[in-house]
Amino acid sequence: MKKIALLGSGFISNFYAVSLLGQRRKDKIHVVCSVPEESAREFASRWNIPKYTSSMKEAVDDPETEVVVIGLPNYLHKEAILLACAAGKHVLCTKPLAMNASDAKEILDAVEAAGIFHGYLEDLVYTPKTLKTIEMIQNGALGRILWTRSREAHPGPHSAWFWDKKLSGGGALVDMGCHCIEIGRSFIGKEVKPMEVMCWADTQVKPIEAEDHAIALIRYETGAISQVEVSWNFRGGMDLRDEVSGTEGTVRLDHWLRTGFEVFTTGMTDKYVSEKTESDNGWLFPVGDEVHALGYPDMLTDMLDSLEQDRQPRETFYDGYVVNAIMDACYKSASTKKWEPVELAVWRGKESMTADARLPEYDELHFLLKKEKMADGNTRVMLKEKASGKIIEKIIPG
Amino acid sequence: MKKIALLGSGFISNFYAVSLLGQRRKDKIHVVCSVPEESAREFASRWNIPKYTSSMKEAVDDPETEVVVIGLPNYLHKEAILLACAAGKHVLCTKPLAMNASDAKEILDAVEAAGIFHGYLEDLVYTPKTLKTIEMIQNGALGRILWTRSREAHPGPHSAWFWDKKLSGGGALVDMGCHCIEIGRSFIGKEVKPMEVMCWADTQVKPIEAEDHAIALIRYETGAISQVEVSWNFRGGMDLRDEVSGTEGTVRLDHWLRTGFEVFTTGMTDKYVSEKTESDNGWLFPVGDEVHALGYPDMLTDMLDSLEQDRQPRETFYDGYVVNAIMDACYKSASTKKWEPVELAVWRGKESMTADARLPEYDELHFLLKKEKMADGNTRVMLKEKASGKIIEKIIPG
Amino acid sequence: MKKIALLGSGFISNFYAVSLLGQRRKDKIHVVCSVPEESAREFASRWNIPKYTSSMKEAVDDPETEVVVIGLPNYLHKEAILLACAAGKHVLCTKPLAMNASDAKEILDAVEAAGIFHGYLEDLVYTPKTLKTIEMIQNGALGRILWTRSREAHPGPHSAWFWDKKLSGGGALVDMGCHCIEIGRSFIGKEVKPMEVMCWADTQVKPIEAEDHAIALIRYETGAISQVEVSWNFRGGMDLRDEVSGTEGTVRLDHWLRTGFEVFTTGMTDKYVSEKTESDNGWLFPVGDEVHALGYPDMLTDMLDSLEQDRQPRETFYDGYVVNAIMDACYKSASTKKWEPVELAVWRGKESMTADARLPEYDELHFLLKKEKMADGNTRVMLKEKASGKIIEKIIPG
Amino acid sequence: MKKIALLGSGFISNFYAVSLLGQRRKDKIHVVCSVPEESAREFASRWNIPKYTSSMKEAVDDPETEVVVIGLPNYLHKEAILLACAAGKHVLCTKPLAMNASDAKEILDAVEAAGIFHGYLEDLVYTPKTLKTIEMIQNGALGRILWTRSREAHPGPHSAWFWDKKLSGGGALVDMGCHCIEIGRSFIGKEVKPMEVMCWADTQVKPIEAEDHAIALIRYETGAISQVEVSWNFRGGMDLRDEVSGTEGTVRLDHWLRTGFEVFTTGMTDKYVSEKTESDNGWLFPVGDEVHALGYPDMLTDMLDSLEQDRQPRETFYDGYVVNAIMDACYKSASTKKWEPVELAVWRGKESMTADARLPEYDELHFLLKKEKMADGNTRVMLKEKASGKIIEKIIPG
Repeated sequence: MKKIALLGSGFISNFYAVSLLGQRRKDKIHVVCSVPEESAREFASRWNIPKYTSSMKEAVDDPETEVVVIGLPNYLHKEAILLACAAGKHVLCTKPLAMNASDAKEILDAVEAAGIFHGYLEDLVYTPKTLKTIEMIQNGALGRILWTRSREAHPGPHSAWFWDKKLSGGGALVDMGCHCIEIGRSFIGKEVKPMEVMCWADTQVKPIEAEDHAIALIRYETGAISQVEVSWNFRGGMDLRDEVSGTEGTVRLDHWLRTGFEVFTTGMTDKYVSEKTESDNGWLFPVGDEVHALGYPDMLTDMLDSLEQDRQPRETFYDGYVVNAIMDACYKSASTKKWEPVELAVWRGKESMTADARLPEYDELHFLLKKEKMADGNTRVMLKEKASGKIIEKIIPG
Repeated sequence: MKKIALLGSGFISNFYAVSLLGQRRKDKIHVVCSVPEESAREFASRWNIPKYTSSMKEAVDDPETEVVVIGLPNYLHKEAILLACAAGKHVLCTKPLAMNASDAKEILDAVEAAGIFHGYLEDLVYTPKTLKTIEMIQNGALGRILWTRSREAHPGPHSAWFWDKKLSGGGALVDMGCHCIEIGRSFIGKEVKPMEVMCWADTQVKPIEAEDHAIALIRYETGAISQVEVSWNFRGGMDLRDEVSGTEGTVRLDHWLRTGFEVFTTGMTDKYVSEKTESDNGWLFPVGDEVHALGYPDMLTDMLDSLEQDRQPRETFYDGYVVNAIMDACYKSASTKKWEPVELAVWRGKESMTADARLPEYDELHFLLKKEKMADGNTRVMLKEKASGKIIEKIIPG
Repeated sequence: MKKIALLGSGFISNFYAVSLLGQRRKDKIHVVCSVPEESAREFASRWNIPKYTSSMKEAVDDPETEVVVIGLPNYLHKEAILLACAAGKHVLCTKPLAMNASDAKEILDAVEAAGIFHGYLEDLVYTPKTLKTIEMIQNGALGRILWTRSREAHPGPHSAWFWDKKLSGGGALVDMGCHCIEIGRSFIGKEVKPMEVMCWADTQVKPIEAEDHAIALIRYETGAISQVEVSWNFRGGMDLRDEVSGTEGTVRLDHWLRTGFEVFTTGMTDKYVSEKTESDNGWLFPVGDEVHALGYPDMLTDMLDSLEQDRQPRETFYDGYVVNAIMDACYKSASTKKWEPVELAVWRGKESMTADARLPEYDELHFLLKKEKMADGNTRVMLKEKASGKIIEKIIPG
Repeated sequence: MKKIALLGSGFISNFYAVSLLGQRRKDKIHVVCSVPEESAREFASRWNIPKYTSSMKEAVDDPETEVVVIGLPNYLHKEAILLACAAGKHVLCTKPLAMNASDAKEILDAVEAAGIFHGYLEDLVYTPKTLKTIEMIQNGALGRILWTRSREAHPGPHSAWFWDKKLSGGGALVDMGCHCIEIGRSFIGKEVKPMEVMCWADTQVKPIEAEDHAIALIRYETGAISQVEVSWNFRGGMDLRDEVSGTEGTVRLDHWLRTGFEVFTTGMTDKYVSEKTESDNGWLFPVGDEVHALGYPDMLTDMLDSLEQDRQPRETFYDGYVVNAIMDACYKSASTKKWEPVELAVWRGKESMTADARLPEYDELHFLLKKEKMADGNTRVMLKEKASGKIIEKIIPG
């Protein structure tokens, strides 16, 4: 059992509280910090937390505090983490780690110097579907990974600070691209180095300085390509989908809008019906257990178990740093309109990986390219002659 | 925190252990009981449980035991519950409560006489999707409930005792119909009385005495009809779907085969890829977190919270008794080939309910039957003249 | 090329015209008949049909008329068909053939005595998905058929005459049950005799004499069970789904609401957006080509090709008669609350069929009941000992 | 009725024959041309075509020929079209129009100089779902278009010539990207100018010179972005999906793998079960009517009706030229690794379009950015103060 100081009392802190307290778990939040203090007080009363404060330092330094959980706006992450370092308290930080790679590197150096436990709270890597997909990929079900697609799109964020570049570090890309990037890394393999990035970003609808829509391609050293799509202009609820394809298979995940839960209602009731949908009548697609579908309980269990068992969690601040470096390259590419290299001062994965692109044998003289059963019952194979390199087709009577 | 004696070490006990222990919860299983003792020993070692035994009495009477959780074959439920009554220990029992309504009534009387807490472990009522659907229905999103459908079908049960009528009490209906019946009741409202039953049951494929396929209709006092479909002959994995329709809406749930998780694999790997599917290549449909999707964690949380907070859980032995009474009527109807009344010695819900079938007003002279926007942009309404009772159509230019 | 007299100018006649004329086909509608004559005139002008009339006899007897296509309310089918018999003109009749089996038999006898070509316009058996499913079943993909489910439900019919039992012959069952019954027959095999019927029917919502909701089970001679679900009380559009399961597989069809076409719209436009949905904002599920998805073009092509090539079409008046006989048994069962036999004065299929329920061999001493790969990688088989009849489980290490 | 000379007897020509002849249509194929002549003879006999030849000139110049339909490999398109120009025969050409934009321009100039009717056979723009989506967009259901995604991926093409860059002009991009580009244009509006292109292309798996996988972004003058994804490395059948999002809505189309037709089969049959799937057991997803789902009948009806009615078809050679120009820019960008302009010698759409990005009014002092109903029943709006430009949040009690 660990005693937690929770910094922040907004949307995300609520998810953490539901996960930590709502399901009879062991760990306790003993203090919550928020500005203004009134919101800390209200949060503490809602979740039965003994202490509240508006001073981060007070919450971190509290002698009971063993773990600091940061659920603050992006621009406050660094300050909060440095306080934890100073106090020698373990720290878990909401995504994205920092406003940019340079801040992220400073943070990483600080926690490693302080020797504290650090977990990067990237919940979407921990959804039950994502975890099982990663396991399948590691078991070889998809063969060599060639392509990933991760999409997160909705009509815009909940809180005003998200819309201000100075407080958030950017727009839709910083808000959601960090999820998509890390999901792609997790599918391709976190030991594979991200090499370069091509990114389009635009402000199509919202009256803000930051981008409200972005698309990025990230090329990894094995040749795998990772596609990131984020938008604050999507209509129809929250579009949260991932895909991954390899030489031997493919996976499609839908986390939110099509999960086997479909409702039609004429809306002839005056009570609240469903959340996170853009309408409250017609066809709605609710999620049974939102917190679970978004990965929060599995993430916090991994973090706190890892701390107790003295092992590294699935997501550390090093991962947060890599993600920030990729996002920096995205912003640069969006401005130079060219592919830009991912600048990593420290790389802890493998080096000099290549695509293992051997062709399967067909017979002594040919490689097999493709095999398809045709409507006439025969099978058509495409072969490459080893000697000549010529591609030929051949019909095998069914 | 409660100390639990777990009776049984098979498939279902494993689900209980995952839910109770696997996610850092408060409660402890301090003893497991199974025959032969070897399987108890193995289970205890797998889950780090301090004691094991092959004697139910010993496990129940153990002074540390506060709650008895029964994960045994159906024919042992009564014996185990009566032991708990004698020892004055709280008891949670896996579905179905008993082999028939008469046994169920005896059990209900015993736990109520003993004054112990009793919970009916009907997990499928607790899936996140089902819980949210019940909440929506209670908020009025579907209007008056008219119809429910609950379907559970797979290629046959895991354990040999299921296939022997003397040990299980029946076939597919007893195995899975109890789920479907209680889901239907939960949607229609558990205060509404089940009146009569029509059931078809047959042994179409499996070489057993019991039915391997059954379909039942249950008529409730409000006129709502509840459709139950169970089969041990289904090919393609586990088909677990519910539907419910009312005057103002409809819900469709898919718990297993189409939940937004889709995998294609050529199967060119020698490792294990996915469970509970009938093939290990081609398109597979895994479930992210099986235990959660089946409702186990939410069920056990409700049970143990209810016990601590001295309130009644969502599912009690009274519910188990009602389900057994409905199943008895199903078996009788399958044999008499007629509708058969549901015989309930005790009814604790509402009496003399009727359908509230008032028509919506259209204008002073007409009721509104239906309204539809046509392809030409006009709206067509079907009306009933209040005076004459005549039905007329009317076009309202769009 | 055939010259067609089209009787009727309503909803269904429009579908026929789209199919026959709208896609550059060979056949011509040379006269349309409707009451009042004004509606015939309007239809003729819309579709560029040379003649119109309000006299059925005039349209049928017209010397140019080769084929009579009946798109009239149910209560007019017999009169129209007898006119075609008298004139020796070929006849295609919209489902259901008649108001009851006795009328259907009289009609069947009349067309056979007259020696004219007769086609039963049961469009839903001809949808591209249904036709391909039938072909797969005939190729053995599902093994022996055990169960079918056909569901048609929407918020109520378009035209006032449907709601009057005297003009339609019944309610939702006559309107849509005829589709579901014939789809079930087509999956099970039309040579298999329908034996008996259990039906529930009720008037839950609509202020009419006829049933607005019905569920029926039809038992066939092989033991296959066919489930029919029809409702005029469904909210959410048109629910048009079929399922069929056999010993070796299963098929699920969705013809309308989930076909890979998904739209979200805020509805901030004043133009018409989509048809046959219950709302015009939020998530909508349109159908690309409605006429095609409902089977009309394939049905009329089969009918007119069959006539030209002097062969029997897929659906004849004999099929219409069988369907009427099953519906009669449904209504009787709904009133007696017992299974009722299907009374067929003439049976043209096979006799004395039985279920071919041989078990697959496992080894010399055992039959195989079930095989499942478990999460631990091992395979669990359920076997029946040939000698003792006992069922045992066995683990085969993976 | 038109008399058609069909050039080519492969996969695509078969689709044309099914569409033109298989469903009782008016037009006739009177001659088929293919090399070797044997394949022409066989095709003619299969489809009951009176004449066959291995000489394109003979087929085109045949006095009966009114329309030339080109179903040949890409490298033969120009030669065939120039023959049609010389003979003054109307011409319909399979996608892509040419090997590159310069050839396409030469072709366009030739047909316009010859004054013949020219149709660009881009079938996927004509699928029933695509046509209805275009109509909805034109009716304003999606508001201003911001983003399109079109994906076509499968395990590789049927014929050997596709794999040879010299015969096809390229790889997956030329084969399938032309579809995706034109679908995107059709959603955004063909009057909107494509401005510049960013493209990644790689040869990840197949042993060929051309790309087997490519992703492109096309920026249009209104700021709309069109995403193209093509792959010959996809496993799991044919992935054919489109999406389009605008300020007021979104559409998702699945044309092939998830269309409401789902089959599970153990494969315990020796007959052919289904086509275009990568396995013949497990879960399969067939298409009811493939030719229709791919748009062929609607495309050919538009082409031949347009010819008869002397109007322009939906897709002309000018469209083919624009697509070739965009593909040229894609290849250039894939090599320069920068955004590249689309070079259009002739632009026939609108000029100087801008995004109409006015914000909706909230009240006199604020614009409305976003509105969301929260779980507590209240509504949260994000507003922009007109005077200060500041973004604020506001809770409106529900």
